[in-house]
Amino acid sequence: MDLRLAQSLAVPAQTKIAMIIMDGLGGLPLEPGGKTELETARTPNLDALAAQSALGLTVPVGPGITPGSGPGHLAIFGYDPIEYEIGRGALEALGADFELGPDDVAARGNFCSVDAEGVLADRRAGRIPTEASRKLAELVRTIRIDGAEFFEETVKEHRFAFVMRGPGLGDALTDTDPHTTGVAPLPVRAVEPGSEKAARLANRFVERARKLLAGQHPANMILLRGFAGFPRVPSYRELYGLRAAAIAVNGMYRGVARSVGMTVLDVDGEPPAAEFATLEQNWGEFDFFYLHIKKTDTAGEDGDFAGKVRAIEEVDALMPRLMALGPDVVIVSGDHSSPALLRSHSWHPVPTLLYSRFVCADGIAEFGERACARGSLGVLPAKDVLPMALANAQRLTKFGA
Amino acid sequence: MDLRLAQSLAVPAQTKIAMIIMDGLGGLPLEPGGKTELETARTPNLDALAAQSALGLTVPVGPGITPGSGPGHLAIFGYDPIEYEIGRGALEALGADFELGPDDVAARGNFCSVDAEGVLADRRAGRIPTEASRKLAELVRTIRIDGAEFFEETVKEHRFAFVMRGPGLGDALTDTDPHTTGVAPLPVRAVEPGSEKAARLANRFVERARKLLAGQHPANMILLRGFAGFPRVPSYRELYGLRAAAIAVNGMYRGVARSVGMTVLDVDGEPPAAEFATLEQNWGEFDFFYLHIKKTDTAGEDGDFAGKVRAIEEVDALMPRLMALGPDVVIVSGDHSSPALLRSHSWHPVPTLLYSRFVCADGIAEFGERACARGSLGVLPAKDVLPMALANAQRLTKFGA
Repeated sequence: MDLRLAQSLAVPAQTKIAMIIMDGLGGLPLEPGGKTELETARTPNLDALAAQSALGLTVPVGPGITPGSGPGHLAIFGYDPIEYEIGRGALEALGADFELGPDDVAARGNFCSVDAEGVLADRRAGRIPTEASRKLAELVRTIRIDGAEFFEETVKEHRFAFVMRGPGLGDALTDTDPHTTGVAPLPVRAVEPGSEKAARLANRFVERARKLLAGQHPANMILLRGFAGFPRVPSYRELYGLRAAAIAVNGMYRGVARSVGMTVLDVDGEPPAAEFATLEQNWGEFDFFYLHIKKTDTAGEDGDFAGKVRAIEEVDALMPRLMALGPDVVIVSGDHSSPALLRSHSWHPVPTLLYSRFVCADGIAEFGERACARGSLGVLPAKDVLPMALANAQRLTKFGA
Repeated sequence: MDLRLAQSLAVPAQTKIAMIIMDGLGGLPLEPGGKTELETARTPNLDALAAQSALGLTVPVGPGITPGSGPGHLAIFGYDPIEYEIGRGALEALGADFELGPDDVAARGNFCSVDAEGVLADRRAGRIPTEASRKLAELVRTIRIDGAEFFEETVKEHRFAFVMRGPGLGDALTDTDPHTTGVAPLPVRAVEPGSEKAARLANRFVERARKLLAGQHPANMILLRGFAGFPRVPSYRELYGLRAAAIAVNGMYRGVARSVGMTVLDVDGEPPAAEFATLEQNWGEFDFFYLHIKKTDTAGEDGDFAGKVRAIEEVDALMPRLMALGPDVVIVSGDHSSPALLRSHSWHPVPTLLYSRFVCADGIAEFGERACARGSLGVLPAKDVLPMALANAQRLTKFGA
């Protein structure tokens, strides 16, 4: 559905929407004929909620397309994930809690190791500890070049977010990371004329960093990749007049939420319980809550079927705390599937539940892949869930006379 | 889904995909409350495969749209059948095993009968025997006109494929066939300026043919219709790096497969058994196999319910030979429906089965219209099946970070 149509119909209301995203929720049976992780999990609260909900299977990007976390989230947030792609560098910066702005071009940075001839020996500098990485970032932060400001935010180990800020910087730039060892890092090239200034500045920065790090070991050089500017995604406030909050622990998800204008709340304690506590504490302040569960995806990517089952059961046990708040609309879904069988993100459509007083409930008292396949939402683009949530929250008026 | 998105994500793999297309597969009960042809057929092998598959109903062109064989096949091959229409003339030439090229404009030709005043008496010249038609084609082949080469390939009875080859020939041309008798054949007109040269050449050719055939009886003139140039459909190799083979007996299907760059294999013996033998013999040489079953459609168009049931059962009995090859992904579907009740192609969505080790199987142990309506693929555009097949064959990588 067209974002602008929903925008044109948005009306104010006092209702509250909660979106619980279990990352990589969809799964597969380990053996043919078996049950998936979600079907295996004991989920009395989600099953009871399913009975009062409309169920379906969401397709984040397209049939057969395995989504990254960025497009997966944009889709369930209601955006066309192809139209509103967030570049890798921008995601990294947002994920590092960097306040990315419209004059910024970001990239993923690595500290790396080069030999005396400048040839790349280790793209990750032996995965130096995060603390060592922070010290190197401080060093690199001393670089000053006319024409732009430069920022480095340590992410983890050898990884950092790199940001150039200045007028007239394009982001159509090639990587310095050759994605292999035994060759020298590459110069940044502008793919479009509007990015030539940015290319010059990035190359000067890398050259300064090389000199500054020359005496360091093992991290004596940097690599930059995935240059991307500020994502131009219209916010929930702008589109629907929603005060939206994000409850997520990991930088990437906090970053995507920030890119769509959500207020990112701090979580004090161990997720997911602490995330539900944050939800309770902030319930009065916002109209829309996105709550992100990371463990389901981590277990899926580790091939840990039982761990993913446990992570789902942990969320199920917390669901009464959400329901006690009296939400008008609840969405439970994922940003993509991550079957333990595949040990990775996958293309499989994602079990999705839409609860409200005004949903025509399917009466299927089970939340699982095959149960959702029988649901009245059918197989639907993930981006179509949000307009239905808004409608159920009585936040969309009639189209046409 | 956008073809170019799947293309941008394609990665190599050692997996094999088999697509079994029973032409006109979908059907209708003869009596309300009854079973369709597919539901009536005893199909233990397809039913067992269905239990391990995801099921759905594919819509080849759009809701309510009855597809011709060209668009029906393009859709299940993964192309938007409206964007990538293959013109009738091009289909006829491809179907006649003519090696159509980019400088060619093709048309469907008929030998016909005109009276002394040139008025059309029989559009099909009494359906002259194929042998007589071949002799007339030899005669017409002697025509030489500066500016283009001309080809005529006998198809069957009065029908032939006509091709003009030369630089700068457009295909925006009107038919000479008035689609009625009692009037004279029409001149070819160019609908766009770029096709004026082609119109002039076609008209001169028709005039020469008229003189050449004047003494013949009953076929003393030709009609041309459905002018169309070389279809510009990107190939499986170009899009996905797939070595694709087609196993089909009838010219039309061999032609469509050739137009999308498939290698068309020869079938030695009686279909469908000989087609499965061809599959076995060539299994090592290709990544993707399209195997076409004609009998289902022929029976459907003849109104022969029992014959269509038998044709389906015959394919079911051959399925173990495919499965013994260990395909990674199997699609069983049709290019459109052809209910015996309607004696024609129809708009009904087509029962479709997608099998792989990584599909989240619906556990529905039946292959039929109503069973597929309950499947997790839902009702889906036929063109969305191929990207899912590629995903299940682990031939598509992740989109976005």
